[in-house]
Amino acid sequence: MPESQSLPALQLKKREERRLHAGHLWVYSNEVDTKVTPLKGFEAGQAIRVLASNGELLGTGYVNPQSLICARLLNTFNSKPADAEFFESGIRHALALRERTYVGPYYRLIYADSDFLPGLVVDRYGEVLVIQITTAGMEALREIIIAALQAVLAPAGILLRNDSSMRSLEGLESYVEKIGEVPDEVVVREDGLEFQVSLTAGQKTGWFYDQRDNRRRLARYVKNARVLDVFSYVGGWGLHAAQYGAAAVTCVDTSADAVQHIQDNASRNGFADKVSTLQGDAFECLRELRDSQQIFDVIILDPPAFIKRRKDEEAGLQAYRRINELAMQLLADEGVLVSASCSFHLDEAALQRMLTRSAHSAKKHLQLLERGKQGVDHPVHPAMPETEYLKALFCRLYR
Amino acid sequence: MPESQSLPALQLKKREERRLHAGHLWVYSNEVDTKVTPLKGFEAGQAIRVLASNGELLGTGYVNPQSLICARLLNTFNSKPADAEFFESGIRHALALRERTYVGPYYRLIYADSDFLPGLVVDRYGEVLVIQITTAGMEALREIIIAALQAVLAPAGILLRNDSSMRSLEGLESYVEKIGEVPDEVVVREDGLEFQVSLTAGQKTGWFYDQRDNRRRLARYVKNARVLDVFSYVGGWGLHAAQYGAAAVTCVDTSADAVQHIQDNASRNGFADKVSTLQGDAFECLRELRDSQQIFDVIILDPPAFIKRRKDEEAGLQAYRRINELAMQLLADEGVLVSASCSFHLDEAALQRMLTRSAHSAKKHLQLLERGKQGVDHPVHPAMPETEYLKALFCRLYR
Repeated sequence: MPESQSLPALQLKKREERRLHAGHLWVYSNEVDTKVTPLKGFEAGQAIRVLASNGELLGTGYVNPQSLICARLLNTFNSKPADAEFFESGIRHALALRERTYVGPYYRLIYADSDFLPGLVVDRYGEVLVIQITTAGMEALREIIIAALQAVLAPAGILLRNDSSMRSLEGLESYVEKIGEVPDEVVVREDGLEFQVSLTAGQKTGWFYDQRDNRRRLARYVKNARVLDVFSYVGGWGLHAAQYGAAAVTCVDTSADAVQHIQDNASRNGFADKVSTLQGDAFECLRELRDSQQIFDVIILDPPAFIKRRKDEEAGLQAYRRINELAMQLLADEGVLVSASCSFHLDEAALQRMLTRSAHSAKKHLQLLERGKQGVDHPVHPAMPETEYLKALFCRLYR
Repeated sequence: MPESQSLPALQLKKREERRLHAGHLWVYSNEVDTKVTPLKGFEAGQAIRVLASNGELLGTGYVNPQSLICARLLNTFNSKPADAEFFESGIRHALALRERTYVGPYYRLIYADSDFLPGLVVDRYGEVLVIQITTAGMEALREIIIAALQAVLAPAGILLRNDSSMRSLEGLESYVEKIGEVPDEVVVREDGLEFQVSLTAGQKTGWFYDQRDNRRRLARYVKNARVLDVFSYVGGWGLHAAQYGAAAVTCVDTSADAVQHIQDNASRNGFADKVSTLQGDAFECLRELRDSQQIFDVIILDPPAFIKRRKDEEAGLQAYRRINELAMQLLADEGVLVSASCSFHLDEAALQRMLTRSAHSAKKHLQLLERGKQGVDHPVHPAMPETEYLKALFCRLYR
């Protein structure tokens, strides 16, 4: 393996290669044999090869001595360098999956570790790509990555949304940069609908592609239904419901800008007469709806992560419980509750247990109909549980 | 609660009510306080009420002193008797879900515990219902159940397939009985396709409704693809692939009768030119295909349960591994493997781990695209893990 021989080596302690042997791509700093290869000897973002304690080559990647996750692998089955060819090949593999499974160019094109490109996320909005780089190793490869994306996709513009809070863990500064033509607002096309979103002022990179397959799942539940879409953002779930035949849709969001976007998007798709909006705190809005005895046939709860760090687990779970119990009070008999969570630290079993208990104490039968997950453009790396975070439990409740 | 006061009581030991408090419907014999309520004092199938050790009413149901699962609850939130009204209401609730989510009358109408009717399964084939009763308690209620189904659905015929091996655990004899008009063969309509199946000579009740939502998932993967459908039975997966634009489909099954049905069903749907069949042992057929260097873009493995009892776990897992590794050898680069298991004793994590390791030792990247589950007509009772058994992992593999 001549290409990698020249890279400096990072050697693991005994038995610390097991996770990598199973396919995982991360090395934690306490797994490194720092007597043989002191972490201080490396620069943040430097290319390296990773060796087991017996000298076996586990792969090549990059290092960051100041991060708890001190190295990530880019190559495991061969030792080719992370050059233009490597990135073009990785992008083409990622693109092939999305082109096979989605109709238009609107999807997460690269989902970091799951596409074997740790530290790199790319969302595609037609002619515009939005990049998020979260590690020093990928930041060091930035120009090669941009060139490879241009070679494969020739986008009109690239927006670097390098302002994630995760970057501080890697000692990276926060910045946003435009390359080429990047409009502030773009239109996302999804299943026959159009959504205008802001790439620069919106949440995350502008749109939540991860829930796309779940929004589509609404089709079998919402015909002629009264639908409540809570934490609506720019109306993704609600407009899908309208398109699939809902009788009336109420969208709730706390942001005035989001509510304006919901109304604009409802008009753009010809559903202004069906879709109404409530601006305000979700908990308060649901209490008011309950107190005025409103009833809905289908309720979607797609909250922001209530549990961002493990220490928020208890308080976050209580928040999930409160909002779900409010929703159950608003739900018609035989109604469907779609209860989502994007908190990695709330696993699906805990969400299910909470819903089961809440339904049982309200003396309602609960049936779990579908376990919605993140869409196909957010594949799961099967040896990295860290790559799986989204769940949307489709439940039916009746007395 | 006057209705239940007259029923004999089954009292649990201290702290044994916890599972029922969470919503579970089963009582194990070692949980009963046999000093207070000796199991010998009951007849198999007798109606009872179940009490916690402090006398709290947990629900009403039926008992079977000779079964390890000695009681099952029919009513938890009230104590109404299990009469005609109870069953008609239960059937209507079950029917409402299926009518909401499926187009034609082809589905599992009642899925036992998940529809709060433990011991009763009913599959609907248009005008014909196929019933499976697996407990003495439900057998005792047989005439009420049949009358309730007739009152709600007025089927042309009812087939009692009371020949499951599970009945021996309850001391029930095995029998098959026809009521009204029950043809030997019926046509199942599913997503624009027609399948002729045998209700009396086929597997299970004739058709595997549980994989329906997963067969539909093939649509996004099989366009222009070479597809291999292993353990094909009467061609369910294969004909879905043909309908969604596969270039060619090869179906493998060991049964001559199944292969004849595949060919008939291919002709019936106009896909005789696309669909070919191989009759033989799946392991041998896959080895022959490999040795003749055949390659497929999409491979579906939907084997019968290789693990029927917990003691078969090790041998069964080896069989899953062997068939999946054979499939990986037949798969094109960037191909999709759909790896299913209906073994309750093989949990999804174990299936995933096995696939991950096999791909990794073949030096292939594996991405987990979708976690297919049993369809909406087989809902999960969220407090009863026993009601969830089917998984179909959609994976992409590439070098």
